[in-house]
Amino acid sequence: GFAKVDDEREFRQGFPEVIFGAGKTAEQILHIFKHLVYKGNTVLATRVDANSAEEVCRQVEGAVYDSSGRTLLYKPEGYELKTEKKIGVICAGTSDIPVAREAEVTIEAMGHRYVSFYDIGVAGIHRLFAQIEEIRKCDVLIVVAGMEGALPSVVGGLVSAPVIAVPTSIGYGAHLNGITSLLSMLNTCASGVTVVNIDNGFGAGYSASLMLRV
Amino acid sequence: GFAKVDDEREFRQGFPEVIFGAGKTAEQILHIFKHLVYKGNTVLATRVDANSAEEVCRQVEGAVYDSSGRTLLYKPEGYELKTEKKIGVICAGTSDIPVAREAEVTIEAMGHRYVSFYDIGVAGIHRLFAQIEEIRKCDVLIVVAGMEGALPSVVGGLVSAPVIAVPTSIGYGAHLNGITSLLSMLNTCASGVTVVNIDNGFGAGYSASLMLRV
Amino acid sequence: GFAKVDDEREFRQGFPEVIFGAGKTAEQILHIFKHLVYKGNTVLATRVDANSAEEVCRQVEGAVYDSSGRTLLYKPEGYELKTEKKIGVICAGTSDIPVAREAEVTIEAMGHRYVSFYDIGVAGIHRLFAQIEEIRKCDVLIVVAGMEGALPSVVGGLVSAPVIAVPTSIGYGAHLNGITSLLSMLNTCASGVTVVNIDNGFGAGYSASLMLRV
Amino acid sequence: GFAKVDDEREFRQGFPEVIFGAGKTAEQILHIFKHLVYKGNTVLATRVDANSAEEVCRQVEGAVYDSSGRTLLYKPEGYELKTEKKIGVICAGTSDIPVAREAEVTIEAMGHRYVSFYDIGVAGIHRLFAQIEEIRKCDVLIVVAGMEGALPSVVGGLVSAPVIAVPTSIGYGAHLNGITSLLSMLNTCASGVTVVNIDNGFGAGYSASLMLRV
Amino acid sequence: GFAKVDDEREFRQGFPEVIFGAGKTAEQILHIFKHLVYKGNTVLATRVDANSAEEVCRQVEGAVYDSSGRTLLYKPEGYELKTEKKIGVICAGTSDIPVAREAEVTIEAMGHRYVSFYDIGVAGIHRLFAQIEEIRKCDVLIVVAGMEGALPSVVGGLVSAPVIAVPTSIGYGAHLNGITSLLSMLNTCASGVTVVNIDNGFGAGYSASLMLRV
Amino acid sequence: GFAKVDDEREFRQGFPEVIFGAGKTAEQILHIFKHLVYKGNTVLATRVDANSAEEVCRQVEGAVYDSSGRTLLYKPEGYELKTEKKIGVICAGTSDIPVAREAEVTIEAMGHRYVSFYDIGVAGIHRLFAQIEEIRKCDVLIVVAGMEGALPSVVGGLVSAPVIAVPTSIGYGAHLNGITSLLSMLNTCASGVTVVNIDNGFGAGYSASLMLRV
Amino acid sequence: GFAKVDDEREFRQGFPEVIFGAGKTAEQILHIFKHLVYKGNTVLATRVDANSAEEVCRQVEGAVYDSSGRTLLYKPEGYELKTEKKIGVICAGTSDIPVAREAEVTIEAMGHRYVSFYDIGVAGIHRLFAQIEEIRKCDVLIVVAGMEGALPSVVGGLVSAPVIAVPTSIGYGAHLNGITSLLSMLNTCASGVTVVNIDNGFGAGYSASLMLRV
Amino acid sequence: GFAKVDDEREFRQGFPEVIFGAGKTAEQILHIFKHLVYKGNTVLATRVDANSAEEVCRQVEGAVYDSSGRTLLYKPEGYELKTEKKIGVICAGTSDIPVAREAEVTIEAMGHRYVSFYDIGVAGIHRLFAQIEEIRKCDVLIVVAGMEGALPSVVGGLVSAPVIAVPTSIGYGAHLNGITSLLSMLNTCASGVTVVNIDNGFGAGYSASLMLRV
Ligand SMILES: Nc1ncnc2c1ncn2[C@@H]1O[C@H](COP(=O)(O)O)[C@@H](O)[C@H]1O
Ligand SMILES: Nc1ncnc2c1ncn2[C@@H]1O[C@H](COP(=O)(O)O)[C@@H](O)[C@H]1O
Ligand SMILES: Nc1ncnc2c1ncn2[C@@H]1O[C@H](COP(=O)(O)O)[C@@H](O)[C@H]1O
Ligand SMILES: Nc1ncnc2c1ncn2[C@@H]1O[C@H](COP(=O)(O)O)[C@@H](O)[C@H]1O
Ligand SMILES: [Mg+2]
Ligand SMILES: [Mg+2]
Ligand SMILES: [Mg+2]
Ligand SMILES: [Mg+2]
Ligand SMILES: [Mg+2]
Ligand SMILES: [Mg+2]
Ligand SMILES: [Mg+2]
Ligand SMILES: [Mg+2]
Repeated sequence: GFAKVDDEREFRQGFPEVIFGAGKTAEQILHIFKHLVYKGNTVLATRVDANSAEEVCRQVEGAVYDSSGRTLLYKPEGYELKTEKKIGVICAGTSDIPVAREAEVTIEAMGHRYVSFYDIGVAGIHRLFAQIEEIRKCDVLIVVAGMEGALPSVVGGLVSAPVIAVPTSIGYGAHLNGITSLLSMLNTCASGVTVVNIDNGFGAGYSASLMLRV
Repeated sequence: GFAKVDDEREFRQGFPEVIFGAGKTAEQILHIFKHLVYKGNTVLATRVDANSAEEVCRQVEGAVYDSSGRTLLYKPEGYELKTEKKIGVICAGTSDIPVAREAEVTIEAMGHRYVSFYDIGVAGIHRLFAQIEEIRKCDVLIVVAGMEGALPSVVGGLVSAPVIAVPTSIGYGAHLNGITSLLSMLNTCASGVTVVNIDNGFGAGYSASLMLRV
Repeated sequence: GFAKVDDEREFRQGFPEVIFGAGKTAEQILHIFKHLVYKGNTVLATRVDANSAEEVCRQVEGAVYDSSGRTLLYKPEGYELKTEKKIGVICAGTSDIPVAREAEVTIEAMGHRYVSFYDIGVAGIHRLFAQIEEIRKCDVLIVVAGMEGALPSVVGGLVSAPVIAVPTSIGYGAHLNGITSLLSMLNTCASGVTVVNIDNGFGAGYSASLMLRV
Repeated sequence: GFAKVDDEREFRQGFPEVIFGAGKTAEQILHIFKHLVYKGNTVLATRVDANSAEEVCRQVEGAVYDSSGRTLLYKPEGYELKTEKKIGVICAGTSDIPVAREAEVTIEAMGHRYVSFYDIGVAGIHRLFAQIEEIRKCDVLIVVAGMEGALPSVVGGLVSAPVIAVPTSIGYGAHLNGITSLLSMLNTCASGVTVVNIDNGFGAGYSASLMLRV
Repeated sequence: GFAKVDDEREFRQGFPEVIFGAGKTAEQILHIFKHLVYKGNTVLATRVDANSAEEVCRQVEGAVYDSSGRTLLYKPEGYELKTEKKIGVICAGTSDIPVAREAEVTIEAMGHRYVSFYDIGVAGIHRLFAQIEEIRKCDVLIVVAGMEGALPSVVGGLVSAPVIAVPTSIGYGAHLNGITSLLSMLNTCASGVTVVNIDNGFGAGYSASLMLRV
Repeated sequence: GFAKVDDEREFRQGFPEVIFGAGKTAEQILHIFKHLVYKGNTVLATRVDANSAEEVCRQVEGAVYDSSGRTLLYKPEGYELKTEKKIGVICAGTSDIPVAREAEVTIEAMGHRYVSFYDIGVAGIHRLFAQIEEIRKCDVLIVVAGMEGALPSVVGGLVSAPVIAVPTSIGYGAHLNGITSLLSMLNTCASGVTVVNIDNGFGAGYSASLMLRV
Repeated sequence: GFAKVDDEREFRQGFPEVIFGAGKTAEQILHIFKHLVYKGNTVLATRVDANSAEEVCRQVEGAVYDSSGRTLLYKPEGYELKTEKKIGVICAGTSDIPVAREAEVTIEAMGHRYVSFYDIGVAGIHRLFAQIEEIRKCDVLIVVAGMEGALPSVVGGLVSAPVIAVPTSIGYGAHLNGITSLLSMLNTCASGVTVVNIDNGFGAGYSASLMLRV
Repeated sequence: GFAKVDDEREFRQGFPEVIFGAGKTAEQILHIFKHLVYKGNTVLATRVDANSAEEVCRQVEGAVYDSSGRTLLYKPEGYELKTEKKIGVICAGTSDIPVAREAEVTIEAMGHRYVSFYDIGVAGIHRLFAQIEEIRKCDVLIVVAGMEGALPSVVGGLVSAPVIAVPTSIGYGAHLNGITSLLSMLNTCASGVTVVNIDNGFGAGYSASLMLRV
């Protein structure tokens, strides 16, 4: 067949292979999705367009599509949260929400909890301070931002939890499709911040979940 | 001769030509400096190394060298402040101070006042809030920052004065000698921020001074 | 809800939050627009496509769409000009006009006056000299240019007002979608020029308006 | 003074401010170092050249210089390990070792344990497999690599701990001073990998330590 | 006419000119294809869209379209394999398969044999080891990978055959449409690896075939 | 030997091979220089450092070193101007003069005349208009500029002669060692402008000379 | 109106303003086209799409559309060739022909002659040598090439006429939409080559025509 | 110790580990060199500076330093050529010779023969044709070029052997330290060309040697 699903991954890494939907046909996604459901796994697919999602949801009972984050999630019987700890997902602008959603559904798939803090960009920083106590209660933080990508630096300086910064492609002109946010985050003057690829909500959610298990 | 000094510039633009010292010999700087002093101008030279500065100071009474900002300033008799307004110069890290100094001496040369706010980067943002009332009293703000260049966005969201952002070359790796700070500032989500070239304290000081005269 | 409108911004910065229409649905724009109208504000939305604009204009009496600059403006009762000062908006080529329009409507929204000088690129520089007296009467200048972005340098050398340079994405090949114009403007040999992001007419109009209030 | 040490940082973030030695004089480093020692902190300085280090070691009893990682560390009385957990530091080539050392001393400063795995690049992958059992016993992993930066992907696929990838500037030509390693790591096909700036051993050690405390 | 087919190429280089279909109309492709068939050649066209392919297949008996690799191949009477040697085509992800197919059909066109090893990326490296014995039996290897492009380094360290690395445009964000994979492969720490352009399966297949004839 | 001097070049191209001094030892330059003198040629060497130049001048009577443009020129007996036409060499800033000199000596070597117009950058454009009549008398124009590289656009719009634009590496920060000037010139909105590599005074002088012979 | 046609340009530069059709509506192009026809000019418009062209041709008798180069040309009564000299237009691949056509129609508009040499790329260099005698008869040469852009270097080394190199956007992957061809041409080791922007056939044709008039 | 020499490499890959001297001390190089000599290997070290080389040559009898290519080679007793086949090493300019030398010594180390063709760049292409018969007798070709990097395309179109292209850092300005030559070679329109990193003579020599063994 066209794909070799890495069936041992849960054993090796603590979570089964996740389907990357970009560039796959509805048929291919469905095929792999069913294979993983059949094996008894929690199944997650990311970057799934609405049409493919509809097809999968029709055929797989229990599959849920998030149209903002474009994820498909199937939780098997017996799914339960693995810990009391929680991940804060902070989002600079309303346009960054889809990336935050990809992170959040990934966290859910991996059996963890998240709290959302949306639309609190640095240009109106009182919005951040209004929620800083709740933010400080989180065990790991994901900070999603486009434009100049300054939010992880500000948050990173206010908390003692590890911060995962997610640059987004939201911006124009000299934003270079997210490169500016990415470079900004890599050069943060705050300590305790690590970075993932542009728009990679999945990667942030995955890594944050692993950190809860350390 | 090697240079055509633009003697009409004060008439046309309100300030005489400024000497850009980079790549000029001590001899060349001295020659132009004296010519401008002789014409009765306030004389400013930027990017002057210590040796050239020593030479000029020896020969031109009243010339003052700032070794941090690497500027030479000569104020003619009758020099006085042109207005009560003032420019705030905010600086993210201690390594950014030389660029701030270039801006400050330029402001002084143009006959204006400045107030300095140093080492208040976003990773310890309480330092900014501790001074925000003083900052809000300024008529124009210059914000100097290297690394991720986030400070102008935060300041820009807290004040109603125009902000001039100056990216610096302070950083390493993916900082790309200041390109990251520059891109960050150009993509600020705050309104009212304009940007000058990397390490261009002179340009910021000059533009800020013009704004005081609007 | 999806957005946290920064209602204190007028208080903090002298102008209410402006709606950035790119990537928002007609519904979202309408929702925020109405909220701001209801609060009694001057309301400005930028980057609004024709369809969304039509929807808003149908529902909000007094909202005006500028199809060139793609802005929506609503002026509340009692709107009036804040000062006699004025901003000159200079434009290099006919294709740069939409960016100039975005700046002009922003200026109007903020309660200021502008004068337009269109299609006077440096390749036919007599067109600039034909209008230089009118240009010199302006208190702040915005210069919009694509291609090699040379116009701000020429204008900057002829006036004593602060100049805000706006690079545009008009060009092809090695123009790199505006990066060339941007780099050119950041490296201007004229003094008194600051720069905003590519195609950012809004930012230029906003900063120019703040400068009138210094 | 030239610097505003962020004295509240330990309280806010769990660790005092770290001195970034690059671009600071021996005098400045010494001044801040003593201030922090005096306050009773563990004191860490990075990017310290041999001369400055010698000066500090002469004046501050107990300060230790690591000439490979170019760090200065002072551990106050009562310093002790905070947990039984440990961080694995894996290094691709012998030239990457200084960056690994910066990470390791940072870990030590923060009160944690590390295990080193050096010179096990992917071109001789049996060297990695020979140590994989020891690697799997670590709670967090730091993977340091230059050249094509492939090692974090391979390691990331073999373990269930979070991985922090550190690109280095080791390479030539199309390596672009580390940009290639950085881009490679940001695009890893392994899950659970986050990235820091080029040569930023400090950032990796700091974040890894925070993860141990989640 | 619009094209000067290089009819002497087989004589000079051992294989006739290959038609590069991108940007050519169905009519143009058909015209050149027929000309080459008429001359008695093996005819290969790459980057052919489905419509053009259909047209050619309708008019040229024996022409075969590969819809994955988007190649058209016509083998003249008397076509036969030129040697017992064989080329291994290794592919990191399922999305890279079209590039691998372009290489494979090129190899077939040139009269050589290939063996395919698909979907064995480095994040699940046991899949590579499971096939390493078969891979070692190949005389030349082509390794196709997108994302971080690490596979050629790992393979290159395990075999003694020459390796041709083919970066693909599969990835997003900081992948820069394949530039990341390309840079990664050019900086491989394995010896014996050479590189072709992004997505250039044709070039890899062609060069690999020449190597079999050394 | 280490070099194959292309002795037929004068026959083929109208001028003998020019020695590119960068990266050659004094010995190598001397060797080739003498070979060409011996053959009776006009001999030109560019990018020659002062030491090598001294060596050559000591041994070859008639060789002249220009320390600004760093060229060595030897004119054989019988050297004479080939035409009455002349090339204007316009230079934006005093720091660009060395590049202009390289062009001028090349023109002289090829048997043509030049007129210099120095230090007339666009920020003080009256300096250009003061000389425009003389400039219009030239048959071909070379325009040398660093920073934003705007001068060729302005000149190109005022004349009917072909213009060769030479970007220089004079600038800092976002000037990217000349890339900004280069991009600017390639995107000129004036017609009739062609471009050479950064700091390539030689190439400009050579091409301008060929144009005089059309 | 939206445009200020530069009516003095013929007087100043020897040829009237050329209409740049990209981003202009059929209506705008028609309006300016008619204005220029009415003034008695030769009228040239470039980058004109088929629909706009049809509209102009319907309304302006004598206007001719070239669908390959996408140019519109109107020659007034009394149009005639200005000289016996001629320009050679050499083209590397069949896909580069549209750019060559833009150059050729520009040459025709300006009253000059051209000779075409198509599809003679360096990979089959005998095709170039087969025509070198005809090429050497040209007074100026335009060389159009995509991919690695090597042709101008080879041609430049074989002729004594000035060469204008035109990089095209034909290529893929690391071709970066023409940047590779452009960089290659700017770094040519041949003397006498100048360069224009990517795909700028117009600029090459215009400059070549000016050279014929030197 | 600091290094884990990959002692099994000869067994796995047919040649022992090669010492990459850049960034290693004389002491480190000497240590590894002796270890490999002791094991009875052919020993090759690249990027070795003159001082380290002197040290090694003093202590290891039989070690030979090539000051152009900066390689150290030790051939054990019993060293002999492995085949009659030979590799042609073609070099565009005299400044590219050190890279060619690195390739040649690597070939010798691996037990193969090479023939050198120096200083035959494309600007004087008759020099290439003068040697084409000898070049065609080679079984594999290495083509080394800086500047526009055109030579591999021309050679690639004239031969049927596989070509390895080596871009060099020889050039200036828009050459970007070799990136231009690299991009050019990756986009060659000739078939049968693969590419290695900038200045990577070692990689080319190594791969070429492997190809002789296919
Ligand atoms: N090697 C390093 N790389 C990046 N950041 C560092 C490094 N060492 C220290 N820092 C950070 O630099 C800050 C101090 O900067 P400064 O005020 O310039 O001394 C500290 O808060 C640290 O978070
Ligand atoms: N997929 C491909 N990528 C790169 N070059 C190709 C490809 N397919 C064919 N070619 C080359 O393109 C040349 C033909 O180009 P053209 O004259 O435009 O059809 C042939 O000589 C091949 O060497
Ligand atoms: N294909 C082209 N590429 C570059 N510049 C062009 C082209 N066609 C026309 N132009 C220039 O564009 C100018 C007109 O621009 P506009 O005022 O926007 O119509 C003319 O002066 C021409 O010099
Ligand atoms: N000039 C060179 N360029 C690239 N790689 C090299 C070079 N010389 C040696 N190498 C590789 O570098 C590896 C040794 O790296 P190291 O462990 O740092 O000494 C060897 O396995 C060689 O494959
Ligand atoms: Mg918002
Ligand atoms: Mg500080
Ligand atoms: Mg116009
Ligand atoms: Mg090693
Ligand atoms: Mg897979
Ligand atoms: Mg000057
Ligand atoms: Mg062809
Ligand atoms: Mg030579």
